[in-house]
Amino acid sequence: MRPSGRVFDAMRPVTIETGFARHAEGSALIRVGGTEVLCTASIEQRVPPFLKGKGTGWVTAEYGMLPRATHTRGSREAAKGKQSGRTQEIQRLIGRSLRAVTDLVALGEMSITLDCDVLNADGGTRCASITGAWVALRLALGKLQRERVLKTIPLIGQVAAVSCGLTAEGAVLDLDYVEDSSAAADTNFVLTSEGGIVEIQGTAEDKPFSEEEFFKLLALAKQGTQVLFAAQDAAIKAAEAA
Amino acid sequence: MRPSGRVFDAMRPVTIETGFARHAEGSALIRVGGTEVLCTASIEQRVPPFLKGKGTGWVTAEYGMLPRATHTRGSREAAKGKQSGRTQEIQRLIGRSLRAVTDLVALGEMSITLDCDVLNADGGTRCASITGAWVALRLALGKLQRERVLKTIPLIGQVAAVSCGLTAEGAVLDLDYVEDSSAAADTNFVLTSEGGIVEIQGTAEDKPFSEEEFFKLLALAKQGTQVLFAAQDAAIKAAEAA
Amino acid sequence: MRPSGRVFDAMRPVTIETGFARHAEGSALIRVGGTEVLCTASIEQRVPPFLKGKGTGWVTAEYGMLPRATHTRGSREAAKGKQSGRTQEIQRLIGRSLRAVTDLVALGEMSITLDCDVLNADGGTRCASITGAWVALRLALGKLQRERVLKTIPLIGQVAAVSCGLTAEGAVLDLDYVEDSSAAADTNFVLTSEGGIVEIQGTAEDKPFSEEEFFKLLALAKQGTQVLFAAQDAAIKAAEAA
Amino acid sequence: MRPSGRVFDAMRPVTIETGFARHAEGSALIRVGGTEVLCTASIEQRVPPFLKGKGTGWVTAEYGMLPRATHTRGSREAAKGKQSGRTQEIQRLIGRSLRAVTDLVALGEMSITLDCDVLNADGGTRCASITGAWVALRLALGKLQRERVLKTIPLIGQVAAVSCGLTAEGAVLDLDYVEDSSAAADTNFVLTSEGGIVEIQGTAEDKPFSEEEFFKLLALAKQGTQVLFAAQDAAIKAAEAA
Amino acid sequence: MRPSGRVFDAMRPVTIETGFARHAEGSALIRVGGTEVLCTASIEQRVPPFLKGKGTGWVTAEYGMLPRATHTRGSREAAKGKQSGRTQEIQRLIGRSLRAVTDLVALGEMSITLDCDVLNADGGTRCASITGAWVALRLALGKLQRERVLKTIPLIGQVAAVSCGLTAEGAVLDLDYVEDSSAAADTNFVLTSEGGIVEIQGTAEDKPFSEEEFFKLLALAKQGTQVLFAAQDAAIKAAEAA
Amino acid sequence: MRPSGRVFDAMRPVTIETGFARHAEGSALIRVGGTEVLCTASIEQRVPPFLKGKGTGWVTAEYGMLPRATHTRGSREAAKGKQSGRTQEIQRLIGRSLRAVTDLVALGEMSITLDCDVLNADGGTRCASITGAWVALRLALGKLQRERVLKTIPLIGQVAAVSCGLTAEGAVLDLDYVEDSSAAADTNFVLTSEGGIVEIQGTAEDKPFSEEEFFKLLALAKQGTQVLFAAQDAAIKAAEAA
Repeated sequence: MRPSGRVFDAMRPVTIETGFARHAEGSALIRVGGTEVLCTASIEQRVPPFLKGKGTGWVTAEYGMLPRATHTRGSREAAKGKQSGRTQEIQRLIGRSLRAVTDLVALGEMSITLDCDVLNADGGTRCASITGAWVALRLALGKLQRERVLKTIPLIGQVAAVSCGLTAEGAVLDLDYVEDSSAAADTNFVLTSEGGIVEIQGTAEDKPFSEEEFFKLLALAKQGTQVLFAAQDAAIKAAEAA
Repeated sequence: MRPSGRVFDAMRPVTIETGFARHAEGSALIRVGGTEVLCTASIEQRVPPFLKGKGTGWVTAEYGMLPRATHTRGSREAAKGKQSGRTQEIQRLIGRSLRAVTDLVALGEMSITLDCDVLNADGGTRCASITGAWVALRLALGKLQRERVLKTIPLIGQVAAVSCGLTAEGAVLDLDYVEDSSAAADTNFVLTSEGGIVEIQGTAEDKPFSEEEFFKLLALAKQGTQVLFAAQDAAIKAAEAA
Repeated sequence: MRPSGRVFDAMRPVTIETGFARHAEGSALIRVGGTEVLCTASIEQRVPPFLKGKGTGWVTAEYGMLPRATHTRGSREAAKGKQSGRTQEIQRLIGRSLRAVTDLVALGEMSITLDCDVLNADGGTRCASITGAWVALRLALGKLQRERVLKTIPLIGQVAAVSCGLTAEGAVLDLDYVEDSSAAADTNFVLTSEGGIVEIQGTAEDKPFSEEEFFKLLALAKQGTQVLFAAQDAAIKAAEAA
Repeated sequence: MRPSGRVFDAMRPVTIETGFARHAEGSALIRVGGTEVLCTASIEQRVPPFLKGKGTGWVTAEYGMLPRATHTRGSREAAKGKQSGRTQEIQRLIGRSLRAVTDLVALGEMSITLDCDVLNADGGTRCASITGAWVALRLALGKLQRERVLKTIPLIGQVAAVSCGLTAEGAVLDLDYVEDSSAAADTNFVLTSEGGIVEIQGTAEDKPFSEEEFFKLLALAKQGTQVLFAAQDAAIKAAEAA
Repeated sequence: MRPSGRVFDAMRPVTIETGFARHAEGSALIRVGGTEVLCTASIEQRVPPFLKGKGTGWVTAEYGMLPRATHTRGSREAAKGKQSGRTQEIQRLIGRSLRAVTDLVALGEMSITLDCDVLNADGGTRCASITGAWVALRLALGKLQRERVLKTIPLIGQVAAVSCGLTAEGAVLDLDYVEDSSAAADTNFVLTSEGGIVEIQGTAEDKPFSEEEFFKLLALAKQGTQVLFAAQDAAIKAAEAA
Repeated sequence: MRPSGRVFDAMRPVTIETGFARHAEGSALIRVGGTEVLCTASIEQRVPPFLKGKGTGWVTAEYGMLPRATHTRGSREAAKGKQSGRTQEIQRLIGRSLRAVTDLVALGEMSITLDCDVLNADGGTRCASITGAWVALRLALGKLQRERVLKTIPLIGQVAAVSCGLTAEGAVLDLDYVEDSSAAADTNFVLTSEGGIVEIQGTAEDKPFSEEEFFKLLALAKQGTQVLFAAQDAAIKAAEAA
C-alpha cells in the first residue's frame, strides 16, 4: 500500500481552474493532490534578440516556489539574489516542453512567457507546471485567435507531464512528496496527446535501475497523462464556454 | 464619482480566507477588491544573530509580487538577481508594523517570518499585506498557545493598513490602481484597533498638500481600518471555530 | 533635559558650505550638528528610457554613507555588492522630495542626479541630505540659467526636512543619534517654504503613538524647517554673490 | 552518411590521458573526437553542512567551458558573475551520476569534487565529462586506498555516458556538434558497466519522438558505453602500472 | 612648461588635516593640489579567518570615489553591485604598502582597516590615499599606545607615494589629471622614509620606455616623497600636540 | 642553492605549443616549468562602445585559473559569482602589456580578446600568460594578414614577461611557487624585444628593498626575457611553416 493509500497506477485528484490571474492573457491554477501551481501566459509583441527578424516566435517559461509552499520555509530566491540550479533546470524543461508542441513559425514574431509559481508543494511540481502551463498557453492563443491576430491556434496537440518512480511498492504513478523523498528512481515523462515523447528525465537515486523497470515506468506515464489530457480538455472547454 | 463607482469613504469588498497555504503555521489569503495577497507565517526556533541570547523574539517580513500579478508582466526579481528598492521598502514596512503590536519579550527566542506574495494586484498591495499578515501571525501564535509553547498570545491588539489619497474627487478612501496612478497625494496609514498610529507614509506626487488635506485623509483611514479590524476578527473566529 | 542640553524645540547648529565638490554643477556640504553630508548635483543631457521623447526632465538621487561615518565601522556597500534596503529607501525619498518642488516640464529633457554622501553621521542624515540636496540642485539650475539653457529656475519654492520624535522629554525637534536610538516614535517631515507637505514618514518604534502626539511633532517640524529654509537662503545668496 | 563519415553506430575515437593536472588527487584528460575535457578529483576532509556527523561522504561536480572552447567565443561565466542554467544543469547531472556508483557510507566523512573543464568542444561535453570524471574519481580513490585511508575502493562498477540522437540518417550514436545542432531528438544516457541505468535525459527538439525511436537510441547507447568502459579500464591500468 | 605652470620637479601644495572623521580612531583629510582624499583608520579586536590564533595582526584598506569627485559623474559602485577592477587594484596596493611598514606581530591580534574615499579627484588619488592612510594609521596606533593597549607604535618608519610620468615636458613629478591623461608613461612609487622601496608600478601607455627614463622617474619620486614625509610629520605633531 | 636546484639566473624550461585550441584564431599552450597556461586569441568585428567610430581597434584580456591548477583546490570564480581582485589585476596587466606593442590604429575597428587560462600553476602565471598571449595574438594577426584583412602585422616587436625576486639566495630569476611564497620581494617585468620597458610591478613583501637590489632584478629580467623571445620566435616559425 502506498503512503497515500492509492493503488500503484492511481493519479491524485486533478483540477484545473482558469482565469485565476485576472490580468494574464491566459491562466490556470492546477491542483494535483496537494500540489498547487499558478500558471500564467503573458504575450509580448517582441522576440528575444537571437530571433529578431527571423519571422518566428518564442515560448519560454519561468518557475518559482513561494517560500512557504513547503513543509519548512525555503529562502526566497529574490532575496538570495539568484535562482538555484534546480529552478533553472525546471524552467528550462517547461520552456522546451511547450515549444515542442508549438508551431513557432505560425505564431509569428511574438513571445509568450509562462510563469509557473508553486503555491503549495507536495511532489511533482515541475510536472504540474508543464500540464498547467499548456492550458494557460492554449487560452492565450485562443484569445489571439478570437482577436484575429492568429488565424489558427499554432499548437500540435496537447502536452502534459507526470512523474513515476520505483518505491518499496514497485513502479508507481504520480509520486507525492513522501514517495519522492525515498524513491530509488524518479522519472519525469513529458508526453503528447498524439502519443509522442517530448522529454524523458530518469534518475537513479541510490542505485541504477534496469531497462525493464524503466519500461514499466513509461507505461504508467502513458496511462497517467491520459487523465491529464482529459483535465486540460475539460478546463479549456469550460473556459471557452464561459 | 470615483472610477469604481464607490463613494469617497467606501472601502472595496474585503475577504480573508485562512489555511490556503497548507504547510504554514498560519496563513491568510486576503482580497481587497481586485488585490489578492497570500500571507503566510513561518515559525523558526532561532533568532537573528543580533538578538542571540537576549531573551527576545523577532518578527520580520518578506514581500514579493508574481510577475503577472499586474497589467503588464513585470520581470521576476529572482531572475534579475535582486529585489527592487520598492520591494525592500515594503517588506521593511510590513515587518515594522507587525513588530509594533507584538510583545517580542513574551514571544521568547523564536522568529516568525511573514511572507506576503501578491497574486493579483489592483492597488494597495502593501496595505493588504499588513492586514493579511496580522491574521497569519495571529493564527501562528494561536497554534503556539494551543501547543502550550506560549501561555498567552503576545499581541497588543490588531494592526491594519489602508491607503487614502487626494484625487479629482477630493480625499478618498482605499485607492485602487486607477486612482493610485493619478492621485496628487498617496498616504498609507497603519493603525491599531486601540486607536494608535503605527506608521504614516504620506507622499505628494505632483505638488505639496496641506495640513488640512492630511487630516481628512487620516480621518478616512480611521474609518476604513474599522472595516479591516472586523474582517480580521471574523477570519480568526471562523478559523479557530473550525 | 535632552542629552545634548538642547530645549525641546531647538535645532542643532546648521551650516551649509557651497562649492566643496569642485567638478559638480552644484554642491553643498551641509552640517547639522555632528551630521555632515556632501551633496552634489550632476547634470546630464539625457533622460531615463521611460521618459524619452516626452519633453520632460528628471531629478533623481543616490545616497551613501562612508564606512566610518558612524561610531563603529559599517561595511562598504560597494564591497558587499549591494545597497541595503535602508539606503534604497532613503535615496528614493530624497528623489521624490526634490521632484515635488521641481517643474520637470520646464526643466526639459535633461536629468539631474543628486548624490548625498554622509561623511559624518549623528542622526538625521536623510533629512540633512534633502535639505542640502535642494541647495545643490538650486545652484545647478542657477548655472543653467546663467548659461541661458533655462530661462527661469524651474523650482516651486524650497524644500527641507527635519526629524522629530517622542523621547523621555516628550516631543522634541531634530533628533540626534542618541535620541534617535531610543525614541518611542521617529517622524521625518519634508516640508516646503510655501507651507506644503511633501512627505511624512512616521514610525512607532515600541508602541503606537496618538494623533495628538503626532500633531505636536508636525508643529515642531514646521518650526524647525524655518531655520533650514533660512540657512538654504543664506547659502544660495553667498554662493551667487561670490 | 553522417557529416563525419561515420556509420550510424560508430563512436568517435576516445583517448583518456591521466595525470595531466599535476596537483590533483586524480585527473583525466578525455578526448572524444574533437571534444576535450580536463577532469580533476579533489579530496577534502570535510562534508557539506547537511551531512555533518552522519558518517557518510559526498561526491559533487563543477563544470565549466573555456571561453574559446567553441567556434565563436562565449562570455566567461566568472566575468558575467553567474553560471548559466545550462552549466548548473550539467554539473548537477555529473554529480548525481557519480554518486549513483559510489558507496558514500564506505567513503566516510570526506568530500570529493570533480571539476570538469572543457578545453575544446565538439558536442557531447557533458557525456565526456561524466566518463572522464569517473576515471579521475577512481584514481583519487585508488590513492586513498594505497595510503590506507580506505580499505577498499567504494565504487559499484563503472559509469559512462554517451549521447544518441535522431538525425537525417536516423538513430545515430555519439553526436558531434554538427549533428547535435540539427538533431530532431537528443538523448543522453548514463549507464553502468553492470548494465544499469543511472540517468536518461531525452529531449525532442522540433517534434515529439516515438517509443520505438527511443528504444533504438537506448540500444545504441548500450553499445557505445562498452567502448567507453574499455577506455576507462585501459586508462586506469596504465596509470596504476606507472 | 607644464599645464599647471609647475617646473618638472615641483609637487603640488600638500596639506593634511586630521580629525575630520569624528568617530574614527584616526583620520586624515589629505589634499594634494585638487585631489582630496578622506582616510580613516578603524580598529577591530579580531583578525581575518586565515590569521586566527597566529598571534599576528592585520592591516587592510578599502578605496572608493564619490560619484562626482570627477569631471563627469561616474556611476556609484554600490549601485552597480560591484567594485571595478581599478578599485580593487588600488585598495590592494594601499593595503600592501601599509603592511610593508607595520610590524604585524607587534600589533597583535587586531585588525586596522584604512578607508580611503576620494572627495575630489585631480590625478594621483592612489598615491594621496597611501600617504594619507599612513597618517590615519599612525594616529590610531598612537591612540592604542596612549590607552596602553600597545607598548610601542609598531611602525617601521613612514611610507608615502607619488606618481611620476613621461610627458611632453619630459620626466615630471606628481602628475595631475591633465598630465596623467596624456602621459606616455605613468609610474607610481611607494617609498619609505628610510629610503626603501615598497612598491613600484610603472606602465607604458603608448610605447615602451627606456631604463634611463625609468631612473629619472625614480629620482624624482625620491625627491617628491621627502615633501610628503615632512607633511605627514607636521600633521602628526599638530594632532598630538592638540 | 635554489629549491629547484637552478642557479640564480636560470629560467625553467620553456615550451610553447600552438594550435591546441582548435577553434581559436590563434592559440598557444605555454609551459614554464610546472606552470602551464592555455592562451587563445579571438577576433571580433566590433569594438567596445567607447571606441566606436574612432577608427581604432582594441586588444583586451581575460584570465582564469582552473580550480585544481593549484596544490589545494581553489573555489571556482564562476560559482562564487565574481572575479577576485587578483584576477582582475592580472587580466588588466595582460591587456595593457599587449596593447603597448600593438598598433591599434593599423588594426582598425576590430577587437582581439586574449583568454589566458591556467591549467597547472607553479608560480609566474601572469608572466607566462603575457608571454603566451603574445604568441596567440601574433598568430591571429598572421591569419588576418594571410586572409588579406590586414596588409601588415600591426605589432611593434615582441613582448614577454618574467618574475624575479629576492630570496634567501639573493636576487634570482623566474620564481617558482616555493620561491614566490617566501620571497622578500617579488617583481614582474614586462619587456619588449627592442629593449623597452612596458610594465614594472615590484612589491616588497616583508620589508622594503633597496634601489641596488631593484637594479639586479631588472638585469636578471632582461636576461630572462631573451630566452622567452627566442621561444616565441621558434613557436611562430614552427606554426607558420606548418
